[in-house]
Amino acid sequence: MLRRKSPIFSNLKELLESHPRTFVSILHANNEIGTIQDITAIGDICKEHNAIFHSDTVQTMAHYRYDLQKINVDFIAASAHKFHGPKGIGFVYISDNIKISPLLSGGSQERNMRAGTENLIGIAAISHAMEMAYEKMEEETEYIKGIKSHMIAELKKHIPQVKFNGMCDDIDNSLYTVLSCSFPETDMAEMLLFNLDIMGIACSGCSACSSGSNTGSHVLSAIAPDSKRPGVRFSFSKYNTKEEIDYVIEKLKDLFS
Amino acid sequence: MLRRKSPIFSNLKELLESHPRTFVSILHANNEIGTIQDITAIGDICKEHNAIFHSDTVQTMAHYRYDLQKINVDFIAASAHKFHGPKGIGFVYISDNIKISPLLSGGSQERNMRAGTENLIGIAAISHAMEMAYEKMEEETEYIKGIKSHMIAELKKHIPQVKFNGMCDDIDNSLYTVLSCSFPETDMAEMLLFNLDIMGIACSGCSACSSGSNTGSHVLSAIAPDSKRPGVRFSFSKYNTKEEIDYVIEKLKDLFS
Repeated sequence: MLRRKSPIFSNLKELLESHPRTFVSILHANNEIGTIQDITAIGDICKEHNAIFHSDTVQTMAHYRYDLQKINVDFIAASAHKFHGPKGIGFVYISDNIKISPLLSGGSQERNMRAGTENLIGIAAISHAMEMAYEKMEEETEYIKGIKSHMIAELKKHIPQVKFNGMCDDIDNSLYTVLSCSFPETDMAEMLLFNLDIMGIACSGCSACSSGSNTGSHVLSAIAPDSKRPGVRFSFSKYNTKEEIDYVIEKLKDLFS
Repeated sequence: MLRRKSPIFSNLKELLESHPRTFVSILHANNEIGTIQDITAIGDICKEHNAIFHSDTVQTMAHYRYDLQKINVDFIAASAHKFHGPKGIGFVYISDNIKISPLLSGGSQERNMRAGTENLIGIAAISHAMEMAYEKMEEETEYIKGIKSHMIAELKKHIPQVKFNGMCDDIDNSLYTVLSCSFPETDMAEMLLFNLDIMGIACSGCSACSSGSNTGSHVLSAIAPDSKRPGVRFSFSKYNTKEEIDYVIEKLKDLFS
């Protein structure tokens, strides 16, 4: 899963050499295009340069196994709804090496680190969802990779002009739950997500955090600023099937024929 | 429910005259001793002096009816678990007259006012709990007042040295869900809550927000700094019964005889 050779490493080293005791925050896997970063290697570089390392592991927690005893990371954050827990509950891991001030102060809940009555149902649920995810992780990973591979192959076959953003079509070196596609330029680009939605296909043009805003994807603008090709992110879970993928392909064929 | 004559009013006026555009924060009802403040009168004073008025209505929301169209309050806050909703969900009302910056920024959730995936189950549940509370509010209020009155009468009869903190024994002018008692000095004061707990009686020595800390009640220290009399708060809901009160009285009689 982890890639050791990436231009990010030399860039990071350069930056940290000129900025001592920096706070580094790097997504473990990008939520839109599925690019995975090697947080073990990044953590080592950060430690070497006395930097504080925060990683958003929301996409990878309970989807990949990793051992925090072996990774030099000071903070990681996760969300239950990414592994079939309820929305609105997550957790942060804070290394013993770090002391921070709480964002929310007042009550003495959570050892004075986060004031406010705890979301008890959420806490119980995230714990249970995590256990369930760990039970069959390898099996479910393989299943979902099969779904994603099927979609990549079918897209290439039926919509040959399709491109994949980042390296998300590299099945073993990208987040296996996400496929970010770049479709051919079309007059109905703006209506594409709307049309797919009407057909019962739930997918996204940007991050879910930006739902309701109309600013588009900052990730896609960054990697292809001038592209007029519509970007669509498909996400997969253990509950998806190849038949569902075939249905999506049929509809996309209609839209792009 | 609301009291119009209180020394707080003249104090507040004096303070606001010398401090223009002040932020005023006053509990609608004190969580420990049940003292109720007249937020309508306070809101009027605040408006007169161009102050910003915040009221913590956690104890009174869904227990008392009030019309925010008629009260000059800029912020109120409430919690679901105070009216039989789940823990960890609440809401804040912010008047249209006020613009504030979010505490948590990042995602565009809740119109950019609170970043982070919403606690959907909690939101649905607080809404439902609120509806249920409003349906039978008057009936349930009377029932709970009956429970509280019964406890006051029985305490006075069987433990004549008991005192009540604040004005919580004034049944119509205090929070009807709380009775804060001051018991006679005793050697086993420190063990009192522990003993009651063992007997299956859930009550508290201070606010629930301070559970786990050993600082005691700042409210009780403020109203009776030198008192060595143990303070115990009993809380009532529609699910309590007079038989439960009688059980508590029996046990207290044993402890204080």
